[in-house]
Amino acid sequence: MRPHELSLAACAREIRAGRLSPTELVESVLDRIDATDAHLGAYVTVTAERARRSARRAERDLATGRDTGPLQGIPMGLKDLIDTAGVATSASSRVRVGHRADSDSAVAARLDAAGAVLVGKTHTHEFAYGLTTPQTRNAWHAHRVAGGSSGGSAVAVAAGQATFALGTDTGGSIRVPAALNGVVGLKPTFGLVPRHGITPLSWSLDHVGPLARTVEDAALVLTVLAGHDPRDPDSLPLPAVDHRPTDDEDLTGLRVGVPDNHYFDHVDPQVESAVRRAVARLADLGAELVGVEIPMARYIRATQWGLMVPEATAYHERTLRAVPELYAPDVRILLEAGELLPAGDHLRARRARTLMRQAWQRLWDTVDVIAAPTVPMTAARTGQESVTWPDGTVESVSDAYVRLSAPANITGAPALTVPVGHDSQGLPIGMQLMARPLGEAVLLRTGHAYERAEPLRTLAPAGRPNPTDASALR
Amino acid sequence: MRPHELSLAACAREIRAGRLSPTELVESVLDRIDATDAHLGAYVTVTAERARRSARRAERDLATGRDTGPLQGIPMGLKDLIDTAGVATSASSRVRVGHRADSDSAVAARLDAAGAVLVGKTHTHEFAYGLTTPQTRNAWHAHRVAGGSSGGSAVAVAAGQATFALGTDTGGSIRVPAALNGVVGLKPTFGLVPRHGITPLSWSLDHVGPLARTVEDAALVLTVLAGHDPRDPDSLPLPAVDHRPTDDEDLTGLRVGVPDNHYFDHVDPQVESAVRRAVARLADLGAELVGVEIPMARYIRATQWGLMVPEATAYHERTLRAVPELYAPDVRILLEAGELLPAGDHLRARRARTLMRQAWQRLWDTVDVIAAPTVPMTAARTGQESVTWPDGTVESVSDAYVRLSAPANITGAPALTVPVGHDSQGLPIGMQLMARPLGEAVLLRTGHAYERAEPLRTLAPAGRPNPTDASALR
Repeated sequence: MRPHELSLAACAREIRAGRLSPTELVESVLDRIDATDAHLGAYVTVTAERARRSARRAERDLATGRDTGPLQGIPMGLKDLIDTAGVATSASSRVRVGHRADSDSAVAARLDAAGAVLVGKTHTHEFAYGLTTPQTRNAWHAHRVAGGSSGGSAVAVAAGQATFALGTDTGGSIRVPAALNGVVGLKPTFGLVPRHGITPLSWSLDHVGPLARTVEDAALVLTVLAGHDPRDPDSLPLPAVDHRPTDDEDLTGLRVGVPDNHYFDHVDPQVESAVRRAVARLADLGAELVGVEIPMARYIRATQWGLMVPEATAYHERTLRAVPELYAPDVRILLEAGELLPAGDHLRARRARTLMRQAWQRLWDTVDVIAAPTVPMTAARTGQESVTWPDGTVESVSDAYVRLSAPANITGAPALTVPVGHDSQGLPIGMQLMARPLGEAVLLRTGHAYERAEPLRTLAPAGRPNPTDASALR
Repeated sequence: MRPHELSLAACAREIRAGRLSPTELVESVLDRIDATDAHLGAYVTVTAERARRSARRAERDLATGRDTGPLQGIPMGLKDLIDTAGVATSASSRVRVGHRADSDSAVAARLDAAGAVLVGKTHTHEFAYGLTTPQTRNAWHAHRVAGGSSGGSAVAVAAGQATFALGTDTGGSIRVPAALNGVVGLKPTFGLVPRHGITPLSWSLDHVGPLARTVEDAALVLTVLAGHDPRDPDSLPLPAVDHRPTDDEDLTGLRVGVPDNHYFDHVDPQVESAVRRAVARLADLGAELVGVEIPMARYIRATQWGLMVPEATAYHERTLRAVPELYAPDVRILLEAGELLPAGDHLRARRARTLMRQAWQRLWDTVDVIAAPTVPMTAARTGQESVTWPDGTVESVSDAYVRLSAPANITGAPALTVPVGHDSQGLPIGMQLMARPLGEAVLLRTGHAYERAEPLRTLAPAGRPNPTDASALR
């Protein structure tokens, strides 16, 4: 295996065994970016020289016995909404041309202190307000969407252009692209990871978290990210804890809820069967499967949009009036729609959220984890606007991608997507695991047990144009 | 002293010494209601028979050694927004005719378990949406407003018609009438006392708390009220604690902030001098006085209204459409205005609140308590719409009464009003003490030290028409 193909945990092990140097690792990742990013478009900015300096610093530190933990010397991508001192943060928007933060976001500072090496800033659907990331191609298929909004981060991790990356998730923006590119994505509990220095989409739904090629890797990153920061008013005042799961594959005693409604409605049959196979694997490992009824399912969509739309517009109010033409048309229309929303509609969504949180709280009295599809279908074709389900229902691609991920944003519950296979076209399928708020331990333990029992290739054959699609590449 | 004139602490002591029975106490209070309430109009409903039964139960329990604490056998009034099983809760509104809750609110249940005796439900400004309580007269002057919205509770306590009462406070609705009627009122920290079973005005600003004739009494009631209840989504998961302050009058080491801005602007000179005298008394007791700058003062009014108006309308949405004519005109116009507010205006207020909380948090690093007027003027004349300040500024009475109390609603900080004297017309003046969120201990200690050092008559000469106003009484 070449260094860029290794998991984070494996890199950390190899580095400490003296078999891999941070410089070799970073060079391997930079080479991979060179070889593939003209096709993939995962990065807005590649910070090669800075990365080489950071790698050398990590080498010197390790040589002198200064070990800052498993992230030391590990190449990472940060979604381009996350401020990094001295590197532009564009939000993949023309509105932000020339924007450069003076100081690190809370998470960038923590990763830097842990020795992680920034190789670049990854593309987001403009201002995180969309589910496709049109600048970026799916790592597994040149004519399929990357998913969004953290599309660049998911593709970079899937393609070996970063060992891990950070994304943000307001309605599924970590989990959707992670699932569509066959990698692991974790949306932590609301308030567990501080968002100071990250451009908001909708502050009451926004989360930041890791994308990686294994659950174990995501847990190692979460351990560095989590912990109180008073600069984020929603940050929970909790002590830092080690989130790395044990290697125990025995799930005896674990109650896994399998939704009877919502999560398997309007789901592609190949996605459903892959997820149900993975759920059965959890049962093989000792988990007890319990049918659960998802409460208030018919209010999910209205609640998500009723919360998000006016909050997004509030943040963009001034630029939307000053330079509306600089926004992409799809984002501009959503932002302008937000100006027309009455406060009553937003408050109805807030009240529905409160009731939904209470109803899910009761659900968590009956199960430890809920297992379901992450998204109802694999990656859509580039430019595809809607999907028609067998019963004739037409749904926009955005609505389809948000539908199964939004509940964890609304309730604040942690949610993890793990790859569980591919469809007949070779496109990745993700299983979503959710747990009660602050239930990261059981969530990561379950995901890690699954990935140990069912090891799967999570590195995409990317960079080469898909054989049948060569004509479409630049 | 007749029993209805005694403080709660004194009643509890006398009852345990065998010198007073709960029945004697309740009869004295019911007699006082009979003698005065035709003039005062503090009560919507008097529950005399129920009160007599409860008093007898308290007597039997005490006789058999079942002591449920200092509230046992103590007559109380509950604002008529607070559900009590089997007794109507009218919100002083024609919209609510016939409304009768099946079960107690969280606070009514706790008070009942502590042995307190409900003597009646007190008038509120309709649905708590106003600062005068027009059904009720000021306990000290027949032609002056009771203040609101907990006007009935304040007048009942001031007039000896209850030993203590509960009110609710969204922008000052406990503190304003308490100050205008010369009693103590405590708005606890947001989330400390659960609001389950209380008709909301604006759920993100609503609080429930005690009105009493001493700070010590308010602390005894708070001890029973406080503690987590998951049925209120904003209830803080904190263990119950004893809030009763010690009798220590020494305030050495206490840093008392005295505002340089906002709190003494547009304040009646008699109010200002009474409050400054009281602040000087705190310094006599050992406190260090520190000038403080109130942050974001010019945003207080817009933030309070921007939060409250749409939340109030959201709650009333259906009845406002079905039976608008049943609301009083002043309340109806506010509710209808709320339908026109865009979500963006509400979200601006939410963001201002977040910034204000952070700015006040920094203030609490520099002082332990802030001392200021509770309201900028004593009780307005009945029907008075506005006040003209010496510089020619005209302010509505509502705005004047909310101006100094709203910051504690917006920031969630606990705030206490204590009587500090009377103006030249004999109308009471209140000093407001505020502390950091969950700083009830220092707040109650400060207020109790003041009331021990400066004992003041808090029982109004009410029930008799004011000599000069006899013609105006029914």
